[in-house]
Amino acid sequence: MHIGFIGLGAMGSAIARNLLASGHSLHVYNRGPQRTLLLRSAGATIATSPAQAARGADAVFTMVSDDAALEAVCGGDAGVLAGLAPGAVHVSMSTIGVAFARELAARHRAEGQRFISATVFGRPEVAERRMLHIMAAGAAQDLQFVQPLLEQVGQSTSVVGPEPWHANLVKLAGNFMLMSLVETLAETCTLAAKAGVDEAAVMEALTGTIFNAAPYRNYGPAIAARRFQPAGFALPLAQKDNRLLLATAEALGLPLPLASLLRDRFLAVRARGAGSDHDLAALSLAAFADAGLLA
Amino acid sequence: MHIGFIGLGAMGSAIARNLLASGHSLHVYNRGPQRTLLLRSAGATIATSPAQAARGADAVFTMVSDDAALEAVCGGDAGVLAGLAPGAVHVSMSTIGVAFARELAARHRAEGQRFISATVFGRPEVAERRMLHIMAAGAAQDLQFVQPLLEQVGQSTSVVGPEPWHANLVKLAGNFMLMSLVETLAETCTLAAKAGVDEAAVMEALTGTIFNAAPYRNYGPAIAARRFQPAGFALPLAQKDNRLLLATAEALGLPLPLASLLRDRFLAVRARGAGSDHDLAALSLAAFADAGLLA
Amino acid sequence: MHIGFIGLGAMGSAIARNLLASGHSLHVYNRGPQRTLLLRSAGATIATSPAQAARGADAVFTMVSDDAALEAVCGGDAGVLAGLAPGAVHVSMSTIGVAFARELAARHRAEGQRFISATVFGRPEVAERRMLHIMAAGAAQDLQFVQPLLEQVGQSTSVVGPEPWHANLVKLAGNFMLMSLVETLAETCTLAAKAGVDEAAVMEALTGTIFNAAPYRNYGPAIAARRFQPAGFALPLAQKDNRLLLATAEALGLPLPLASLLRDRFLAVRARGAGSDHDLAALSLAAFADAGLLA
Amino acid sequence: MHIGFIGLGAMGSAIARNLLASGHSLHVYNRGPQRTLLLRSAGATIATSPAQAARGADAVFTMVSDDAALEAVCGGDAGVLAGLAPGAVHVSMSTIGVAFARELAARHRAEGQRFISATVFGRPEVAERRMLHIMAAGAAQDLQFVQPLLEQVGQSTSVVGPEPWHANLVKLAGNFMLMSLVETLAETCTLAAKAGVDEAAVMEALTGTIFNAAPYRNYGPAIAARRFQPAGFALPLAQKDNRLLLATAEALGLPLPLASLLRDRFLAVRARGAGSDHDLAALSLAAFADAGLLA
Repeated sequence: MHIGFIGLGAMGSAIARNLLASGHSLHVYNRGPQRTLLLRSAGATIATSPAQAARGADAVFTMVSDDAALEAVCGGDAGVLAGLAPGAVHVSMSTIGVAFARELAARHRAEGQRFISATVFGRPEVAERRMLHIMAAGAAQDLQFVQPLLEQVGQSTSVVGPEPWHANLVKLAGNFMLMSLVETLAETCTLAAKAGVDEAAVMEALTGTIFNAAPYRNYGPAIAARRFQPAGFALPLAQKDNRLLLATAEALGLPLPLASLLRDRFLAVRARGAGSDHDLAALSLAAFADAGLLA
Repeated sequence: MHIGFIGLGAMGSAIARNLLASGHSLHVYNRGPQRTLLLRSAGATIATSPAQAARGADAVFTMVSDDAALEAVCGGDAGVLAGLAPGAVHVSMSTIGVAFARELAARHRAEGQRFISATVFGRPEVAERRMLHIMAAGAAQDLQFVQPLLEQVGQSTSVVGPEPWHANLVKLAGNFMLMSLVETLAETCTLAAKAGVDEAAVMEALTGTIFNAAPYRNYGPAIAARRFQPAGFALPLAQKDNRLLLATAEALGLPLPLASLLRDRFLAVRARGAGSDHDLAALSLAAFADAGLLA
Repeated sequence: MHIGFIGLGAMGSAIARNLLASGHSLHVYNRGPQRTLLLRSAGATIATSPAQAARGADAVFTMVSDDAALEAVCGGDAGVLAGLAPGAVHVSMSTIGVAFARELAARHRAEGQRFISATVFGRPEVAERRMLHIMAAGAAQDLQFVQPLLEQVGQSTSVVGPEPWHANLVKLAGNFMLMSLVETLAETCTLAAKAGVDEAAVMEALTGTIFNAAPYRNYGPAIAARRFQPAGFALPLAQKDNRLLLATAEALGLPLPLASLLRDRFLAVRARGAGSDHDLAALSLAAFADAGLLA
Repeated sequence: MHIGFIGLGAMGSAIARNLLASGHSLHVYNRGPQRTLLLRSAGATIATSPAQAARGADAVFTMVSDDAALEAVCGGDAGVLAGLAPGAVHVSMSTIGVAFARELAARHRAEGQRFISATVFGRPEVAERRMLHIMAAGAAQDLQFVQPLLEQVGQSTSVVGPEPWHANLVKLAGNFMLMSLVETLAETCTLAAKAGVDEAAVMEALTGTIFNAAPYRNYGPAIAARRFQPAGFALPLAQKDNRLLLATAEALGLPLPLASLLRDRFLAVRARGAGSDHDLAALSLAAFADAGLLA
């Protein structure tokens, strides 16, 4: 298949390489050109605009950081919407707001193009190993069309609904679950620390037995060890997703007190100086500070 | 080994039967006598008091509902402390407060008896299958002594510290993680419900992939289906544990905002009428009510 | 003085009438024409656009419902900015966001016009009696220029800073204090109600003695009596102000947990059906619901 | 009248002196004897036990720090209950729990003694000027009997219910309102501080106009100035009252999310080192810390 791929951050690069390694021809675009070199040496051709990457493609993938970045590569004369052929499909993988996903679907529909959301869970190293969990949503035949491609990049594809934005909602929900888990582990660690019990042992005991899902096993030891780097899921990106979640919920008339608590926690740790070089695990600094456990 | 076993609720009965089936002689006591019949027919002898169950035992297990119930079987002339021989060990499995666990350890020490805490995670059907996860704490030689017994009742034993109360703290921490997870899933389901997305599909997608620990897989579908019975972990017992956690934290001078949120959620759902015939999953009623999703 | 006045809701009408009664000539504009009749009969002339109301005026007052409404009367060919003479002053009384207030100040400055914010506390009947409390901010000479006018409409003018937006921030802060007070009174009433103590007596005892500020005296008895109409300060308007506050705080990197709690309370009572015909006092419905006190 | 007076802290001393100055004979008791000297020089006689202070008195007042301190002066052979004559009245002014107030009423009833609660609002210097606000509850004839005495110590007496504990509930409610107000002012000050607006000016503008009740006027400027000493209402005492409130609410099955927030704020500021030499105003340190405004 002819595939366009836009957005070569750590996640996008890993996914693109896997598509390429699966025998597809890849036309890639990235805002900063240096990131494209590795892909070129692996056999991809380089597009000079998103429109060009989309032109002639059966499917174009986008994996960028937020609503604004996705609009930047989709809209305008040089954007995906301008380049993609009628009937071709845009596979949107970015973590974006529900409202924007709906709008984008409508704009593609108006052009006779197809659009699905296929959001992903997993860190870059997970993406490299084709072990992502994919949440896909859209029209059944569109999902069927891209399924062989998704199988090259992830270990599972869950179809969560018939509208593309359903997958964006599920992505926000999953990230909310992740952040709640981090706050939970943080408060648990403060309890152990104040009681004088070995935090690492407590984390090992709990996340190695009943709470043995990957996010617990990743974040529990990291928080117990105050290991907040590297920024696998950068704190400001997580905060952005929490903001999208709250905006979505507010538009639905829905209170989410736990998400509100997380919101205040993000603001508090950022006011203390944690930023884009910190992982989401650094959200725990708020709990440690309130416990009087910071120097 | 000669084993005393006190407390034959659903959990206690399952554990006692497994010890019996492993070839140990069992002397059991329960407040209500009817519960003892099944154990008798399986080969246990029936004691008429906790002291009698403890007398002559190498180890006596207790598995009762709370601090008061444990005091009731431990203290006084007919209690475990009065009956247990010096050098014998009390294996305390109940979910009790940290302060009470410390006190009990001191009282046993004063009698020359040994005391360990071996708290457990898992529902009765899990206990039946010897698949409990055990959090054990106490002196190394005491833990070593009971380890062969613990292996008959659980799939794993995590040693979390040298003081028996360490295991009680970890049990409270684990239950806190469980309740936080329930609140998280509840808010996630309200989001799906208000957005018109299939809750069951969302739960399946998330708890079947990255969030694939047993508690997620148990509670996610239950909450999506509003299935709050049977009371595997009865709401008032969970509320009691949250209360113990907050008391422990307050004694340590530690704020736990997420546990405070759970506290208010418990009170709100109970004020609406949820009670001892409801499972912890019914905590989600607070989120559904606030979302305007209850009739 | 020649005065333009734009926005004849309950508050605007009362203020406009007082300016007129003080001997000033008034040129008024309102989106819906029927509201202008009363002012015409009192001696005002009717403008057909905001620009026309501003033209020739020494000062133009605006009192509309939110950022969008203020933009609607300020921008474009028919707006205040197009009509106001250089050197004349725009007195902005609306409760708007800080960011928009800053932007508006800059746009006026670019036209050589003057701009101050003069936000007000008090209900329409308070405005009628010229008893408003005014929070004013802007350049000293501009404030001095309008002070004689402000004295016709309020009992006090507090100068809170040299930038117009300072008064908008103080207005949002004051409304936050009001909403916090409502939540406080609500929880206090649930305590009395659950304890079987006379809520009205408790409210009278507390708000008639140490807590004897007007907001306590207004809201305490109203909440105790579940009197949520008429909508003196309509619930959705209060919710909008809470939203503005949180947006302002987020832009400053500031967590406000009490405002977050209020946010969730607003969403919860609105999800239960409370709306624009309910007063802010109806925020208490969330506390009553959680206490199990609603039918 | 013959009056017994027990508890000569700053508040008790001021009240006792006013009763003495009104021409009543006073028999006083205090745990530490040095505090009694001033009263003796003013004409009081010194009792060597609470029982002795109560013996022969028409009314005995108690003003001590908490439940335990009140039990210490009421119970036992040397306590108020042992000394007070049948028909005489115990006027309990301490801030105590509702459950303990109910118990004490029953114990007095069993002895044929009368018991009322007369809790007070105001700082020691307010007590000196006989300007306290008194919340009284109990049987009508008992309240009537002590009313002339209450008039010597306060500016107002609000009768809040027929059971003595009603006044204790109202005292806890009033203190909750006070603490909520402190949190509200704290968050308001962080907003001003982060925005670069003069905090003192904002506090003056708001607490000098619509929010002009004494607690606002006391705490607003104090918080804006970070003035946390002297400890007019010591932080640990306020925390104790919040704990009593939450316990009372929990016994009633009532969630109070704002009181829960305060609970966590108390714990956080104490974990950072604020203690008994800090005023309740220091609760604001939590908001300042979360805003990144502490060094």
